[in-house]
Amino acid sequence: MDYNQIFEQIKKKQSFLCVGLDTDINKIPQYLLELNDPVFEFNKQIVDSTAKYVVAYKPNIAFYEALGVKGWQSLEKTVGYIKDKYPEIFLIADAKRGDIGNTSNMYAKAFFENMKFDAITLAPYMGEDSISPFLVYKNKWAVLLALTSNNSAKDFQLLDIKDTNNKLFQNVIEKSSSWGDCNNLMYVVGATKAEKLQDIRKIIPNNFLLIPGVGAQGGSLEEVAKYGMNKKCGLLVNSSRGIIYADSSEKFAEAAGIKAAKVQDEMKTLLADIL
Amino acid sequence: MDYNQIFEQIKKKQSFLCVGLDTDINKIPQYLLELNDPVFEFNKQIVDSTAKYVVAYKPNIAFYEALGVKGWQSLEKTVGYIKDKYPEIFLIADAKRGDIGNTSNMYAKAFFENMKFDAITLAPYMGEDSISPFLVYKNKWAVLLALTSNNSAKDFQLLDIKDTNNKLFQNVIEKSSSWGDCNNLMYVVGATKAEKLQDIRKIIPNNFLLIPGVGAQGGSLEEVAKYGMNKKCGLLVNSSRGIIYADSSEKFAEAAGIKAAKVQDEMKTLLADIL
Repeated sequence: MDYNQIFEQIKKKQSFLCVGLDTDINKIPQYLLELNDPVFEFNKQIVDSTAKYVVAYKPNIAFYEALGVKGWQSLEKTVGYIKDKYPEIFLIADAKRGDIGNTSNMYAKAFFENMKFDAITLAPYMGEDSISPFLVYKNKWAVLLALTSNNSAKDFQLLDIKDTNNKLFQNVIEKSSSWGDCNNLMYVVGATKAEKLQDIRKIIPNNFLLIPGVGAQGGSLEEVAKYGMNKKCGLLVNSSRGIIYADSSEKFAEAAGIKAAKVQDEMKTLLADIL
Repeated sequence: MDYNQIFEQIKKKQSFLCVGLDTDINKIPQYLLELNDPVFEFNKQIVDSTAKYVVAYKPNIAFYEALGVKGWQSLEKTVGYIKDKYPEIFLIADAKRGDIGNTSNMYAKAFFENMKFDAITLAPYMGEDSISPFLVYKNKWAVLLALTSNNSAKDFQLLDIKDTNNKLFQNVIEKSSSWGDCNNLMYVVGATKAEKLQDIRKIIPNNFLLIPGVGAQGGSLEEVAKYGMNKKCGLLVNSSRGIIYADSSEKFAEAAGIKAAKVQDEMKTLLADIL
């Protein structure tokens, strides 16, 4: 999926919402556990009830790996279901991978070839040759961690780099932005750090930013849009727990749809200036 | 497995060799492909022929994920086989994971509970709260990336940090070493950066170091031992491709055993001073 296809979706749906499918078998409605594949069934219903409000889904791979082979099966089924039924929706593997070249090749194969994800989140610590194997795929995306939403982001991401005015996360963005371009590189910036989006937009005015941390983690959608939005929106704002666990009864999917619609409605207002 | 149990193995086997089970279905002997689970069969034979020379195995998870559900099955079988037959051998998931707390919990569950790995490699970029979920497990280990063996390690790991004499990798080691202790924290330092081991030993004299990059990547075992070994060895030196792909015929396992024995013999000499 290319930049314009994502932007077309944003315009069409008046939304830049990404829903995180962080499906925890201990948090989904009890009655689903009697089914053959409760995780897939949960995802399927969440997707069907939220698809018209969202431009992207982002399964966090940890939640599937925690279930072993069965989890991996649920993930593959979920990806297949979304790609078949909603091919216009952008699909991000929240995997935070990154390894030496020949190993990153394998991860790229896993997520881009076997599973048809459009994008994967990656940790930048190992540098360019750990990221470039993902950038050779046409219309696929590497989403680099820049400034994450967790408290401990400060441990290293906010270190000042000698002889520059940059903190580490700025150096990561500045350096890595030349490894690809705004057609294959996105960055993760936590909504809890919205005030930093202005500085980030000075370095990368055009790249899409994937913004977690709205909702359960406390970030503000309005601030994110104020400081981070560009003329083609340039934002995918993720909400996971706030939407998928909106209700724990048999009406969980309906409740998730209502929550997603509410966020989409806010986004519509925020998009009014550029659309 | 605790520090002393690892050291006991090192003394008993006169070896600090870790074999990387980076099993690539395109590189294993052709005739194995006719079997039901070629990857497991390859691993099983490699393990049986090398176990007496090694103290650790390290499957790189990417190679299994690249095969989807089937790869995950091969991984689980491999881990089960090693833990059943060679319970004294230290088992490292080379996964390079790391995410916000509730997600890192899931990865810890996947690798420490479901699969009984003793250790997992982790990327430090997201800071303490992405690592601490792995440190709460007794006798399990977090192995943090510090200075990796790839060329692009220089992109960020060698950045100078303002108002210190530290580069980023030194800051990572210094800061993170207080998150746990030498009973649950190891560090990855590439053999291709052996000259840096002296500086690293000044910060963490006692922690185990996991050293990839000997063999195919060109690092020197002798230099690694010279600069990195401490009184309890403190090193696990990994070789993957150099051992497991020593031969591509039906004698692949035998050839791997011969290669491993040769490395173990070198290690015995290098250990002579401390044992």
